[in-house]
Amino acid sequence: MAELGNVGGTRDFLPDEMIRREYVIDTLKRIFRKYGFEPLETPALERWETLAGKYGEEGEKLIYHVVSSGALDSLKPGERTDLALRYDLTVPLARVVAMYGDQMQVDPQNPKKQVRKLPRPFKRYQVQAVWRGDRPGAGRFREFTQCDADVIGSTSLLAEAELIALVAEVFAALGFADFTVKINHRRLLQGLIEWAGLPPSKEAAVLSSIDKLDKLSVAEVRSELHSKGIEASAIDRLFQVIELTGESTHLLIQARSILADSPAALVAIDELESLLGYLEAYQVPADHYKVDLALARGLDYYTGLIFETVTSAPVGSVGGGGRYDKLIYDLSGGKTDQPACGTSFGLDRLLAAMEHLGLLAQVPRPTEVMVLRFTDPGVDTFTQTLVRQLRAAGIRTELGYYDAPFTPDGMRQQLGYANEKAVPYTVILGPDELAQQVVALRDMTTRKQEKLPLGEAAMYIVRKLRPRLGETE
Amino acid sequence: MAELGNVGGTRDFLPDEMIRREYVIDTLKRIFRKYGFEPLETPALERWETLAGKYGEEGEKLIYHVVSSGALDSLKPGERTDLALRYDLTVPLARVVAMYGDQMQVDPQNPKKQVRKLPRPFKRYQVQAVWRGDRPGAGRFREFTQCDADVIGSTSLLAEAELIALVAEVFAALGFADFTVKINHRRLLQGLIEWAGLPPSKEAAVLSSIDKLDKLSVAEVRSELHSKGIEASAIDRLFQVIELTGESTHLLIQARSILADSPAALVAIDELESLLGYLEAYQVPADHYKVDLALARGLDYYTGLIFETVTSAPVGSVGGGGRYDKLIYDLSGGKTDQPACGTSFGLDRLLAAMEHLGLLAQVPRPTEVMVLRFTDPGVDTFTQTLVRQLRAAGIRTELGYYDAPFTPDGMRQQLGYANEKAVPYTVILGPDELAQQVVALRDMTTRKQEKLPLGEAAMYIVRKLRPRLGETE
Repeated sequence: MAELGNVGGTRDFLPDEMIRREYVIDTLKRIFRKYGFEPLETPALERWETLAGKYGEEGEKLIYHVVSSGALDSLKPGERTDLALRYDLTVPLARVVAMYGDQMQVDPQNPKKQVRKLPRPFKRYQVQAVWRGDRPGAGRFREFTQCDADVIGSTSLLAEAELIALVAEVFAALGFADFTVKINHRRLLQGLIEWAGLPPSKEAAVLSSIDKLDKLSVAEVRSELHSKGIEASAIDRLFQVIELTGESTHLLIQARSILADSPAALVAIDELESLLGYLEAYQVPADHYKVDLALARGLDYYTGLIFETVTSAPVGSVGGGGRYDKLIYDLSGGKTDQPACGTSFGLDRLLAAMEHLGLLAQVPRPTEVMVLRFTDPGVDTFTQTLVRQLRAAGIRTELGYYDAPFTPDGMRQQLGYANEKAVPYTVILGPDELAQQVVALRDMTTRKQEKLPLGEAAMYIVRKLRPRLGETE
Repeated sequence: MAELGNVGGTRDFLPDEMIRREYVIDTLKRIFRKYGFEPLETPALERWETLAGKYGEEGEKLIYHVVSSGALDSLKPGERTDLALRYDLTVPLARVVAMYGDQMQVDPQNPKKQVRKLPRPFKRYQVQAVWRGDRPGAGRFREFTQCDADVIGSTSLLAEAELIALVAEVFAALGFADFTVKINHRRLLQGLIEWAGLPPSKEAAVLSSIDKLDKLSVAEVRSELHSKGIEASAIDRLFQVIELTGESTHLLIQARSILADSPAALVAIDELESLLGYLEAYQVPADHYKVDLALARGLDYYTGLIFETVTSAPVGSVGGGGRYDKLIYDLSGGKTDQPACGTSFGLDRLLAAMEHLGLLAQVPRPTEVMVLRFTDPGVDTFTQTLVRQLRAAGIRTELGYYDAPFTPDGMRQQLGYANEKAVPYTVILGPDELAQQVVALRDMTTRKQEKLPLGEAAMYIVRKLRPRLGETE
């Protein structure tokens, strides 16, 4: 190991950081499952031809090629290797749907019947790393984790409603008090652009400018639109709608009256109104979502409802999603055509927002109790028994790996280790305690100690850490 | 997407398989944490120089190199790229220990103090994919998951004892009734080889033959040893010890008397005896471990206690480990020297063994209840409310994405979907049920239906699925 270090743009996640990542990922997965999503994992290694032509010219340069060390020597100059690293989770999803979507398999509950290999709609979540050969920079990584949940094969608006309810539940579960899911509809924006007198060819340019309204001022965005050749009167009409504010239902009534001649916009407004009804039925708190007609979402593949979550932390959007009914067809090279919608969480931004808001302090490190170890006769056996009893009750317990009889220094050393791991309680049993038939239970935060009778120590500690009856793990 | 398919030797894990993988991984992580292990993740991308020279000549050929698509064209023939894919979890662990092992950071509980960035001993678990550019074959993959738990920085035999207790708890938790952790000690084997009159230079050759005793007959192994130039009298002496059988304590008494002149063997026997005492104190069931003096373990880096788990499924060893006090020094290029021991679980073999023994049938798919959806007036709102109530109680619930009023065909279609996802219960509410103010709760296995009063349906279903008071999720 000539030099020690990471590849630029990659990170080691040491335990204190990893525990927080696992906490967030476990929370996401728990809520995904609660809404009927099931896990999918695809390999990091994909065929080059699966990824080629999917991410635009600039994106394609960032795809990593892979070649085994043994085969490297025979690679000709400029030759593409047939192996590549996963670049996102959407192209692999399209590949999976195209490969298995029509396959049947034996029904596990009834061997005489066949069932689909992938249920339809296919509700899957996927939490995996992706790789991009980008120049590393602040907050820009070559390897990062995407957390996606998608519904493939349903046109029902209920799918989007449930995704938004799920998003609101995730943010509440992670401890965010202040967050808003902003909701809009691509067809409303398309209708608006048409109503403003602009041709469909201007759509991408207009949407990409509107998308910047969370970073630029209205004047700056107007000037950008102007520089794209949009006339002032058209810009005025666009802003007449996207600047509408107020309670979501009222806002839609205003938009309906302004865009009364646009069939596309009216369909979108109908859907947004139905959606508000669904969110009310699901009792999603009304202060956590709102229709925002200025929301555009950067990606051009959305075809229907779109949404994006912002929090009070200055890290930008921490997740979003929408309906993309044509993308599976495009990404599968026309092999399967299925309507779809989904949501994606940005793990790094989510963690940055939680850090900013102090929501990560609540995430405990795993060990709950550390029993100090001394090898004095009688002491050693008792501490091992105590550790066994605590673990049997589901308490995450460590025993000091200390191979000597009691000394104050041996105690300090083990308490120092417990401190490094932020263990909340330690148990001390030296020869003095053994003579008195007690153990000392030390609260590592307050440094207060209480003495417990030797024979009741395990039961006392279990009750203290698991106050709810029957809760063992 | 010209052709659809996976890279050879890689796999898509569709939900029914992925749910089982997540179940096993979650069980492993839960028990790792219970024993005080904390998570570590390292990047898939490692510097080539970190991996070079670590895996032997044959291994090195299998390391994957990585190069971004944009940089591929400027790669000279035969040139190594400086990026490579992780090949195992041990070299990254050595790198992490060497990089951060001596670093200090501010104590989060006391800003005036400094604590180690990595606690010592460093007890970490790591569950991540590794890549090898091997020719794909039956059960041989280019991308697979390793599950490791290691203790770095402790010489205490308690570390090995806890690893074995942990292993026994994992197999019991996964439902294995019949499994054995076989235990031996490298220094006992070294003492034996010396006692048999063989020079240390023969050690690797002898151990690699002994290691084959689980696949070859005694006669075959003897003949292989003979072909390696070991004399018959030495072979006899080796087998005099490695064929000892019986209860672990008695077996060690016999070995102690035979190897009485070997200091190395006597140290090892002392450690094995202490270990048996620890396992007894931890109440690891005695039928789940035994000293087996024929256990050698293939890898040559072990320096002390070794162990390996076999089950009644014909898939070979499903995990093993031991002490490797010199490896961190070697792998870190001499940058840090720390004693270590660890254990590794083979996820694919573990799943194969569970499949063979029928232990995977118990792993449920996530969704517990599916509420069928019909858009008849009154019905739709009620079903959405019911879904919300069930989810609020922690029940993993789906609502059918069906956008039409009740018909028998719409019911069949949604029941078919529930069947594809192996959902145990469905709730049916059509206009007939609404008129009677009831819902039908259908047991999808028995196909029996019971009628529940509309207003009490949620509470009844929650009680049925969460019979333990206060258990909500």
